[in-house]
Amino acid sequence: MLKITPLGGTREIGLNMTVIEYGDTAFAIDAGLMFPEGYMLGVDIVLPDMDYIREKGKNFAAVVLTHGHEDHIGAIPYLLRDMNVPIFGTPFTLGLVRHKLEEAGLLANARLHTISLDEFLRIGPFELDFMRVNHSVVDGVGMAIKTPVGTVVHSGDFKLSQSAFPWMNTDVDKFVWYGGQGILALLSDSTNVEKDGRTISDMAVGETLEKIIAKSPGRAIVALFASNIVRIQQIVDIAEKHNRKVIFDGRSIETSTQIARDLDYLRLPDGIEMNIRQIDEVPDDEVVVITTGSQGEPMSSLARMATGSNKMIKTRPGDTIILSSKFIPGNERAITSIINHFYEQGADVVYEKISDIHVSGHAFREELIEMMQMVNPTYFIPVHGERRHLIHHARLAKQAGIPEENIILPDNGLVIEFDETGVRTKDHITTGRVLVDGKGVGDVGSSVLRERKELAEDGIVVVVIVFDEETGIVVHGPELLSRGFVFQNLKGHILEDAQCVILEILEEVRPDMPDRVSVIETQMKSALRQYFKFTIKRRPVVIPVMIEV
Amino acid sequence: MLKITPLGGTREIGLNMTVIEYGDTAFAIDAGLMFPEGYMLGVDIVLPDMDYIREKGKNFAAVVLTHGHEDHIGAIPYLLRDMNVPIFGTPFTLGLVRHKLEEAGLLANARLHTISLDEFLRIGPFELDFMRVNHSVVDGVGMAIKTPVGTVVHSGDFKLSQSAFPWMNTDVDKFVWYGGQGILALLSDSTNVEKDGRTISDMAVGETLEKIIAKSPGRAIVALFASNIVRIQQIVDIAEKHNRKVIFDGRSIETSTQIARDLDYLRLPDGIEMNIRQIDEVPDDEVVVITTGSQGEPMSSLARMATGSNKMIKTRPGDTIILSSKFIPGNERAITSIINHFYEQGADVVYEKISDIHVSGHAFREELIEMMQMVNPTYFIPVHGERRHLIHHARLAKQAGIPEENIILPDNGLVIEFDETGVRTKDHITTGRVLVDGKGVGDVGSSVLRERKELAEDGIVVVVIVFDEETGIVVHGPELLSRGFVFQNLKGHILEDAQCVILEILEEVRPDMPDRVSVIETQMKSALRQYFKFTIKRRPVVIPVMIEV
Repeated sequence: MLKITPLGGTREIGLNMTVIEYGDTAFAIDAGLMFPEGYMLGVDIVLPDMDYIREKGKNFAAVVLTHGHEDHIGAIPYLLRDMNVPIFGTPFTLGLVRHKLEEAGLLANARLHTISLDEFLRIGPFELDFMRVNHSVVDGVGMAIKTPVGTVVHSGDFKLSQSAFPWMNTDVDKFVWYGGQGILALLSDSTNVEKDGRTISDMAVGETLEKIIAKSPGRAIVALFASNIVRIQQIVDIAEKHNRKVIFDGRSIETSTQIARDLDYLRLPDGIEMNIRQIDEVPDDEVVVITTGSQGEPMSSLARMATGSNKMIKTRPGDTIILSSKFIPGNERAITSIINHFYEQGADVVYEKISDIHVSGHAFREELIEMMQMVNPTYFIPVHGERRHLIHHARLAKQAGIPEENIILPDNGLVIEFDETGVRTKDHITTGRVLVDGKGVGDVGSSVLRERKELAEDGIVVVVIVFDEETGIVVHGPELLSRGFVFQNLKGHILEDAQCVILEILEEVRPDMPDRVSVIETQMKSALRQYFKFTIKRRPVVIPVMIEV
Repeated sequence: MLKITPLGGTREIGLNMTVIEYGDTAFAIDAGLMFPEGYMLGVDIVLPDMDYIREKGKNFAAVVLTHGHEDHIGAIPYLLRDMNVPIFGTPFTLGLVRHKLEEAGLLANARLHTISLDEFLRIGPFELDFMRVNHSVVDGVGMAIKTPVGTVVHSGDFKLSQSAFPWMNTDVDKFVWYGGQGILALLSDSTNVEKDGRTISDMAVGETLEKIIAKSPGRAIVALFASNIVRIQQIVDIAEKHNRKVIFDGRSIETSTQIARDLDYLRLPDGIEMNIRQIDEVPDDEVVVITTGSQGEPMSSLARMATGSNKMIKTRPGDTIILSSKFIPGNERAITSIINHFYEQGADVVYEKISDIHVSGHAFREELIEMMQMVNPTYFIPVHGERRHLIHHARLAKQAGIPEENIILPDNGLVIEFDETGVRTKDHITTGRVLVDGKGVGDVGSSVLRERKELAEDGIVVVVIVFDEETGIVVHGPELLSRGFVFQNLKGHILEDAQCVILEILEEVRPDMPDRVSVIETQMKSALRQYFKFTIKRRPVVIPVMIEV
């Protein structure tokens, strides 16, 4: 019996990880992270709960990667800490993984294996065959998984529009060939199911970029995702044509371009590259800077350029900043703030709202239908999306002629079973999101987040009172301290009055009352809450520190 | 000399307030608020700094309102607390202001005056004439301001596409007539300058809404902004045509529809309205619910429906939820979370990404050019936008033939002066943003926000040590308390180890050392910071409480 179980990626864009099992053998497609949502205060990254895999121990045979984006490879270091499972991927994907494992101090023992598009990969009863797919990172693949009950095709993250480089195009022929063999199930990328029509081609984006870079009277500064090697190659080619030098700015760009150059995926004409320290040695209109920070990340080189605090690059009138990436939901205000700052400095900014300088890496609706038609599966399983994406993709499949009963809506933890008699879904296994904050993996949960939210809203007030253990007399305090509550000038005033509120309680609670200290504590908390509500309508967290000495 | 000074609205969408002065007389167009940005933790609303107006005292003669959106009227209660200036507006706008002042306990003394589109309004040397504009709230106006040095036209928030109700269309004839008289300057709405073409008409939106509501097999639940009376009337008309009852759900919808009904701006056929408590008394396909919460506000009735915690309405398969409003940047994740929840319940959701069930109230580029052509001003001043919007609008004006030297880029606080010889910009007056948190107006500034951010990131650790004043011996502690730092299970562990770190310091600092307590405090803070960084890579706020008794 074949089992397909997503551990993540079917309730979110992120956390992509799907377990494939037959008999005793299991492997996973991808092991991705997610960036925290707004309410996850202080959280660095989010991981899928991988306990299901850990419990399989030696029966868990491999992780097979489709491509090198964080939502597909970001959880690998956390998995490898606990089990040294082999990782399979294309050269560029493994290049990024290698870098990641090096930073985590896990590279020495890691078992990384390069996959080839011309060879089958055997994992126990499975035989995997990989197909090139065009995506916003180079070296992406989809795959056909031959199993004893039939062949399953996974689209990977794909689009069908033309890449700037023909060898990067989706291998339509191979998908069609598999379609002709009879396919049990297709798992397909749902990200852009809300978008009608087709993605524009990378070539069209290149043409727009060329026009903008060519006519920039000053520096052209292009911000994009570091792994978008095709776009970087296009910009290098444009720079060469228009006699501009190229500067790679920032650590992640340096890392990814180095990996791509080592693999010959990125080719730089001799002498075109320049160090950022030399930027003022050539005329402004002979420079292209390639950098990251296009999501408005506040510590990025781009954000520091925008606010004038970048020591290497001071932007000025004539410079053109090109944000060649999507405005990811949640980042829009950070991005537009950077745009406004650049305008303020007299620089010009080109961004997706006003020009086609970006294209998504994920297929639009027409391409999604084409994938279904090429693969022509018996069963269809939409993956890689939030609930609404999967549901829209399921509807699209129905419109495209797949019988409703053969469309399976997956869920994180839902076990989809195939055997000779058909398909069944059963058993939600335990899944979830594991929050990483600093070195803590999983210790920050809803109670800590709730406390952080309360602290963030109105700050904190600490009340210290020291009693004489024998007499019950107050020997110190009430002393009040606050953070994030009110401004210094007002603070003295409000905290002094709050002190009077507490003194009244201390007077009223007789020294011989049983449990006196805890009575005072309870009354004080409630009185302070009321007092702050009445005077300033805020609800700081009140921490009473009642000490007997 | 005529002076035009924006106090807000030229560096943000929000805080719209522009002071117009001649000689001793000043008045303001609008007095709006802004909703807090993500980093303004715990802040309720943001106001423009109105000190410039307060200082004018009796010379400040009026606030004239263009329409009733919060970014144009929201600061009025805060202004009226300090000075009882007369407020002028159209009937619906004043209806909303009246409600607002009532809630603030300021209505009794307020001086509210209804303006008419057929009469001039005199304010000292100024003569104001109002023109109907079509916007996403009823009863919006633009205005012509006759001054001793020429006539200034303010567009208000406008679009030129057709309303569903002809009497709500922008009064193009009157704008053209003024254009023919010779206009000194045009101030025009820049919000949608990034959008090509024209807004679609309210009628087109109505047709789409009708199709969706008519074919919903269950309840149709439409979420929109409460003040969008035209859209509400359209939905009522659709409900009547398709034999559905109408339920107004939520306080703000009840308020705005009541104001509109009192003014006869909203007409309900007899018997069409139903109370929400009766919702289960009629078949699902005979109900339309009109509600708010379309921005994903977590406490809204809609959000509670989505999570199944709304006591009045349980959505179920067959119900169609229609989000008839824009995804405002910053709210996207909250909105999509609600959408996913509804899908999870089997309900269907229609939203702007997948259907034209919403249109902006602000003109697109072609309409913006038409406004310039109609009014044909000598000077052009783009308003109502962030920096990038104003700069794009200035460029559009240049393309439309207005000489570059006659295009003035305004700024919050920049005084634009007109006299017989021309225009000058000088003197930035002091402006800024005033943050409102609870009853505190202006006391939360960057230092409090910084503290809240630190608290939100990694929580807080309070360390209490009580020393004997004479001997220096520790009589209590070190006692450690934390909030929002680590999960309970881990907490004991980490805080116990941290206690040992402090005990070591206490041992090392000799009892006779001068300033012993403050030395301990300093060493302890630094040691704890290092310890937490090393063990868990977090930086909680450490509050030492060192007491001598």
